Amino acid sequence: MAKELKELTSRKENYSQWYQDLVIKADLAENSAVRGCMVIKPYGYAIWEKMQRALDDMFKETGHVNAYFPLLIPKSFLSKEAAHVEGFAKECAVVTHYRLKNSTDGAGVIVDPAAKLEEELIIRPTSETIIWNTYRNWIQSYRDLPILVNQWANVMRWEMRTRLFLRTAEFLWQEGHTAHATRSEAEEETRRMLGVYTRFAEDFMALPVIQGVKTESERFAGAIDTYCIEAMMQDGKALQAGTSHFLGQNFGRAFDVTFIDKEGKSEYAWATSWGVSTRLIGALIMAHSDDNGLVLPPKLAPIQVVIVPIYKSMEQLKQISEKVDAIAARFKSLGITVKYDDADNRKPGWKFAEYELKGVPVRLAMGGRDLENNTVEIMRRDTLEKETLSCDGIEEHVRGLLEDMQRNIYKKAYDLRQSRIISVNDYEEFKSKLEEGFFIMSHWDGTAETEDRIKTETKATIRCIPLDSEAEEGRCILTGKPSSRRVLFAKAY
Amino acid sequence: MAKELKELTSRKENYSQWYQDLVIKADLAENSAVRGCMVIKPYGYAIWEKMQRALDDMFKETGHVNAYFPLLIPKSFLSKEAAHVEGFAKECAVVTHYRLKNSTDGAGVIVDPAAKLEEELIIRPTSETIIWNTYRNWIQSYRDLPILVNQWANVMRWEMRTRLFLRTAEFLWQEGHTAHATRSEAEEETRRMLGVYTRFAEDFMALPVIQGVKTESERFAGAIDTYCIEAMMQDGKALQAGTSHFLGQNFGRAFDVTFIDKEGKSEYAWATSWGVSTRLIGALIMAHSDDNGLVLPPKLAPIQVVIVPIYKSMEQLKQISEKVDAIAARFKSLGITVKYDDADNRKPGWKFAEYELKGVPVRLAMGGRDLENNTVEIMRRDTLEKETLSCDGIEEHVRGLLEDMQRNIYKKAYDLRQSRIISVNDYEEFKSKLEEGFFIMSHWDGTAETEDRIKTETKATIRCIPLDSEAEEGRCILTGKPSSRRVLFAKAY
Repeated sequence: MAKELKELTSRKENYSQWYQDLVIKADLAENSAVRGCMVIKPYGYAIWEKMQRALDDMFKETGHVNAYFPLLIPKSFLSKEAAHVEGFAKECAVVTHYRLKNSTDGAGVIVDPAAKLEEELIIRPTSETIIWNTYRNWIQSYRDLPILVNQWANVMRWEMRTRLFLRTAEFLWQEGHTAHATRSEAEEETRRMLGVYTRFAEDFMALPVIQGVKTESERFAGAIDTYCIEAMMQDGKALQAGTSHFLGQNFGRAFDVTFIDKEGKSEYAWATSWGVSTRLIGALIMAHSDDNGLVLPPKLAPIQVVIVPIYKSMEQLKQISEKVDAIAARFKSLGITVKYDDADNRKPGWKFAEYELKGVPVRLAMGGRDLENNTVEIMRRDTLEKETLSCDGIEEHVRGLLEDMQRNIYKKAYDLRQSRIISVNDYEEFKSKLEEGFFIMSHWDGTAETEDRIKTETKATIRCIPLDSEAEEGRCILTGKPSSRRVLFAKAY
Repeated sequence: MAKELKELTSRKENYSQWYQDLVIKADLAENSAVRGCMVIKPYGYAIWEKMQRALDDMFKETGHVNAYFPLLIPKSFLSKEAAHVEGFAKECAVVTHYRLKNSTDGAGVIVDPAAKLEEELIIRPTSETIIWNTYRNWIQSYRDLPILVNQWANVMRWEMRTRLFLRTAEFLWQEGHTAHATRSEAEEETRRMLGVYTRFAEDFMALPVIQGVKTESERFAGAIDTYCIEAMMQDGKALQAGTSHFLGQNFGRAFDVTFIDKEGKSEYAWATSWGVSTRLIGALIMAHSDDNGLVLPPKLAPIQVVIVPIYKSMEQLKQISEKVDAIAARFKSLGITVKYDDADNRKPGWKFAEYELKGVPVRLAMGGRDLENNTVEIMRRDTLEKETLSCDGIEEHVRGLLEDMQRNIYKKAYDLRQSRIISVNDYEEFKSKLEEGFFIMSHWDGTAETEDRIKTETKATIRCIPLDSEAEEGRCILTGKPSSRRVLFAKAY
């Protein structure tokens, strides 16, 4: 694909440009001809598939099943929940017609004015409305509950400023939509799924996260409570990596979803919804990668090990290939994904740079001397450390190495965050620490006005009220009014 | 979900109503509030997931990778390939605006006229245009080829008459889009994927298919050749179960996708596309199911074995459950999906009917006497045969039984088709055999006019020119003009 391996912009020089360069050069995604919509390229999509598989397994382990609901939502549905439509109306793609035709003046194909829809349809920005309209017919008795459904789908939000993976008009995601007989059961589900997201972020993405609850102004449109996980990127900005909403009876009421409870009384059903999206790929990149390219946690790397032959003749290549085939088979038997790159139109040095760029966790290189000595050179992507090892038992060594890298990548991200999270009581210090890229724990008086003023003045938002933040008397960083606990402030993606 | 287990309409009484009843009663799918769009319910979606997994593995084994392209296509793209736009213009959902707002007269939320798109966007009915527009930047040299990409996605075709799974405005599918340096390589790919679809239909869906090539009038809009697999449903109608298109250089030319070949010459890239959709779920249902409900081939059954306890006391249930847990664990260790239904609000008879309706391949029932005798009653769904067997080694027995059922379901469908496919040389016989539900091999003069007249007069279409049909001199069934081989006629879904 006619790629030139140019230098990446360094993170220090321009973090935002580094990210953009990396997404493009590592062949993860690109902008499409449609404003704000991206093409997810095979290498980027392979990461998404790994994420999907892991998440889907976790959803199923927690009792959920998948289903599929329509892409298009009648405009009137969106209006049924007041806060919901308020939140999404400004970014809706609207279908108004269902046919094209040839124009009579020969100007080509035009929209057929005769094929206008009676009611406009919205491309789903999220599916609460169409799903709760469906649930009305699924739910009559408490025996029909809970409903624990997830959907893997594309959604569309007409964002004006977009960035690959992080904010795109169309994105891929999963959205769980559950219905329950009691408030406490729905609240429990909301927190259970926050836990699933946390485990996924930490165990698979090697991404330490802070669990918390959003303030009223940052809540999902239509939710009673929005729980979230927030991660620190290398520039110190926060990225919301997943949300889980307790929706109360808002959608039950809006769509008249009632059931007869154990006592024979009619009640509105209780709802949750929760989602993560292809945005996580952006988080993965920004959390771990370096100036040489991607650094991928082994559990999500499409290729875990690449083997590059270094040869002086075709005869030697043949000998190396024979040896490598046997090694590769041993990797595969351990469930390790391996690629042998014996393409003859690229030099080893080019390949080394390419696989560093693409974040392949382990690189093996085998040359003539290795062949004689039954050795192989091994490099780990996270630290770029190299050593030469015997081929005997190399597969077990690599398995251990992959596990070590998974832990090490997590630890590095964790240590960074711990070194950059600080409690601040003074507004001037707040502003300067923010500019240095800190997560800041400060007191807040609990009002939307203050939250908004801080945002306007500093660009920091309240990322969440951390679940583990302890009660502590204090005074609001801005107004000095009393506060009972610290909240997490940061600039965010 | 407040279901009543009413009788299905029988196939004999009304095949079409039987299908409709079955889809609803077996909880596979339902119509949504959006015209022509269905809700795929969890049980139906679980079948789709099994299909996806098997197909995706086969695509990857044949060297393909997944990617994702935008949902929306600029109207002008669709117009670039003349035959393509001609084929799809009449069923396009068109996005014209990107924002809603509150109406000033308090009438609620309206489309914001100020947010009109400069160029209308079409919800993809298929993605050749947006993908080939993207490929232009991916392809410069023969070294960039082949590109072997697949996409799992939703598409929309505004059909006027819809039926659950078989024909819906929105459906889920996969679409492969490959680019090649030579004509012969693209043709080979087209046939390779036809082979993949054939293996999937026969090995997983237990559905015998006839491979063939479409006549010009039945070709995909923009294709040079459309290959297909055609299956017989129990009413003798044909269902197209997959298509693989050789697109020549049509899209390469339309989107100016050129590359420098080995000789240094600039050439348009050669294309294929191929797809199967959620329509296959309709085929699966109609090919195998009976008047008691679904019959699912074990390889695609979401639950392969259900175990129902029959007990007189909670103490007895406890004993049965202990025994069943051990058996279920042995099933799981063999990779057999098992469900133990000990719900106490339904009688065993109700459960038996329910799992027959849902097509669970094997049902085990264990009562008090079984407990004493270390036995279990086993029923296979395809033949409804029952026997009582020892619990020792039951998992191996069931494994063998599932394999046998997979073969048996295939054989039954194969035998039906073989008994209903006939060579006919006389037009009157043609018409009467067609009414009896036969696939008919007849001579045809090769003209679209004749094909069209036969369709108008009999509702039969040429399903395909079978790949294995031998050269044979003959005379057209309608016009008596010379013909060199028989083609396959049938009424179709």
